[in-house]
Amino acid sequence: MDELIEKGAQAKKASVFLARMSSDEKRSALEEIARLLEAKSDRVITANTRDLENAQKNGISGPLIDRLTLNPERISAMSEGIRQIARLDDPVGEVLYMKKRPNGLQIGQVRVPIGVIGIIYEARPNVTADASGLCLMAGNAVLLRGGKEAINSNIAITGIIQDALSARGIPAGAVQLVENTGRESAMAMMKLNKYLDLLIPRGGAGLIKTVVENSRVPVVETGVGNCHAYIDQTADLVMAEKIVINAKTQRPGVCNAIETLLVHRSLAGGFLPVICETLKKHNVEIRGDNYVTSLVPYAVNATDDDWYEEYLDLRIALKIVENTADAIDHINSYGSGHSETIVTESYANAQRFVSEVNSAAVYVNASTRFTDGFEFGFGAEIGISTQKLHARGPMGLRDLTSTKYIIYGNGQVR
Amino acid sequence: MDELIEKGAQAKKASVFLARMSSDEKRSALEEIARLLEAKSDRVITANTRDLENAQKNGISGPLIDRLTLNPERISAMSEGIRQIARLDDPVGEVLYMKKRPNGLQIGQVRVPIGVIGIIYEARPNVTADASGLCLMAGNAVLLRGGKEAINSNIAITGIIQDALSARGIPAGAVQLVENTGRESAMAMMKLNKYLDLLIPRGGAGLIKTVVENSRVPVVETGVGNCHAYIDQTADLVMAEKIVINAKTQRPGVCNAIETLLVHRSLAGGFLPVICETLKKHNVEIRGDNYVTSLVPYAVNATDDDWYEEYLDLRIALKIVENTADAIDHINSYGSGHSETIVTESYANAQRFVSEVNSAAVYVNASTRFTDGFEFGFGAEIGISTQKLHARGPMGLRDLTSTKYIIYGNGQVR
Repeated sequence: MDELIEKGAQAKKASVFLARMSSDEKRSALEEIARLLEAKSDRVITANTRDLENAQKNGISGPLIDRLTLNPERISAMSEGIRQIARLDDPVGEVLYMKKRPNGLQIGQVRVPIGVIGIIYEARPNVTADASGLCLMAGNAVLLRGGKEAINSNIAITGIIQDALSARGIPAGAVQLVENTGRESAMAMMKLNKYLDLLIPRGGAGLIKTVVENSRVPVVETGVGNCHAYIDQTADLVMAEKIVINAKTQRPGVCNAIETLLVHRSLAGGFLPVICETLKKHNVEIRGDNYVTSLVPYAVNATDDDWYEEYLDLRIALKIVENTADAIDHINSYGSGHSETIVTESYANAQRFVSEVNSAAVYVNASTRFTDGFEFGFGAEIGISTQKLHARGPMGLRDLTSTKYIIYGNGQVR
Repeated sequence: MDELIEKGAQAKKASVFLARMSSDEKRSALEEIARLLEAKSDRVITANTRDLENAQKNGISGPLIDRLTLNPERISAMSEGIRQIARLDDPVGEVLYMKKRPNGLQIGQVRVPIGVIGIIYEARPNVTADASGLCLMAGNAVLLRGGKEAINSNIAITGIIQDALSARGIPAGAVQLVENTGRESAMAMMKLNKYLDLLIPRGGAGLIKTVVENSRVPVVETGVGNCHAYIDQTADLVMAEKIVINAKTQRPGVCNAIETLLVHRSLAGGFLPVICETLKKHNVEIRGDNYVTSLVPYAVNATDDDWYEEYLDLRIALKIVENTADAIDHINSYGSGHSETIVTESYANAQRFVSEVNSAAVYVNASTRFTDGFEFGFGAEIGISTQKLHARGPMGLRDLTSTKYIIYGNGQVR
């Protein structure tokens, strides 16, 4: 893949330039990108119209069309997002510590950009702008490989970004789009460890699995969310209902929505039929274990697959558990390590849940829907990591940096 | 590989137990391991004698035999190492921050164990004890896959560790040895992402490359060190000589020894012949660029490969550079990102070198030999990371942990 080798080399070169930029210079470049995106929004909308026409020709419909569509409001929102990133603290250059060793060496650890970041994503053209803004602010070059459905929009957006970079004297290698959208370009990117320091797949479970299995470039896995709510024996049941309905129905298609509800056996007679009624009113299909289906006539039988599933839809798996330990076991066995919540008034059960559930974000008495860079106060996010290395949970600017040891001596030898 | 699937599952189970242990319980287990290793050192030495006999039969000799050999003193050193780890601060449970969001959610980030760590290494049986101690203290289960040369020693050591764990009520799955030492067990370990959270290869460049190219488990690359010293125009030449000789000859077989010396052109007439004479006296073979070989009769011509090479031997590549920028370019093009040093009296050149060299540890006026967990004050290390994700530079206990967000609410929904 000549395109990737060439763009990888350009990105690596640009990354040296970016690492040297001051925070003010980076902010000024982001402001210019935001301004040009709005000023040239016609160009983006024209390109987007072609993508939408192609999508229609190819019989694509529904949510994908919505994700693909850009209009002046959405372009303004993209620009506003980049302006917000420009206002965040620059993590680069932060000294994490500096200490003097007994031999007089002064050893410090400082935050530096990662270098070149590759992002493989699907049909959302707004990712092109968001990811570029985040990577640039953290001093990284970025190589973007979006889905074929959005190729014209992505070419227009990255073209405008490169115009803005050029106006600020920044090499175009800082933000590049891979124009080959075939499977071969994604595979080639996964082998580009000579140039890429990090690869982030953003998209469905299939994409993420392919990247994890094939990449030689270090990967941060993002996003698959088989999230759980556990309603403990001692729960405030009004709060429990509010949290379950919010976590399941407020936006069912996102990764931090719940997919499985675990209910303590003592609540099977009282709370269970009530919450099922409310779920039904919200058009949520219920797949329950045998005990649930014996109590709730409109619940269908769950198979073992259901406990693993990320529905991303108005459907919920429902299981009766014996106690907190049983709920924790279920979550740690079937979950994807994203976000889980316990609703309880018991101090002991809350603390046990928080300490033993093996997930990126563990809640007590709140909706899992808060797992998000904005809600956590990071200002923006590049994704939600469900792996344990480097970053776990919502990834903000800091998670797009590495560190370096710097050591000042005056002739020390061993 | 049934052995790996079975041991992987045991390790995952044990990791839940380990994550719950208090610091005192972990310390007590490490003390017991250290005590039993000494008390049963005969068992280890008998097993080691068999490994040494096999090595002799197979015509293995020299440094490998030395690395493989255990004796009562070395076993005591292993125990002492484990006692030192037991005295380190436990990183698990540290609250990195906790803050209240405007909606009342209290969001905290705490340090937790990674889970299950796999280590693939070569013929050093002491790694078996060191790595077990470090992983356990950070609350992780460990799956060890050492080289076939040390298999009997490793079986004896892990057997004793498991006896000690059992005496403290800890499941044997916490520390396990892969007894199949064929290539297939290493390959199977790289695909064991169902059970392993992290894989650390410790060994030569070939092993590390194989793991990076084939692993589905997140990897931390360790150890390849093509390190550089750059002697600037303004250097204190007495200091420069002392640092070069120390970094090259004090222990040439380790990763933080220098392999390439870069000398400013203005020093070609004076310093260059002097340092070459001293290197020659230390039996260091010199491979120089054309200018060097024209000035130093006993220097042989370097090829392009020499600039990439990690000799791990009494050999040095030597190049004349025009200035600090040229030195930085050379290091960033040919280096492995481990440790580099500049010898200079110029503030500007020191700062430029420190900020632009893209390596884990960048020194001013000191030997690169200090890149090491003990020298940095971490007490112990599991390896030196030369990648940019998760950990960079010497990896201590903290780098064997992940984090988790915990969120306390009182009914918040979105």
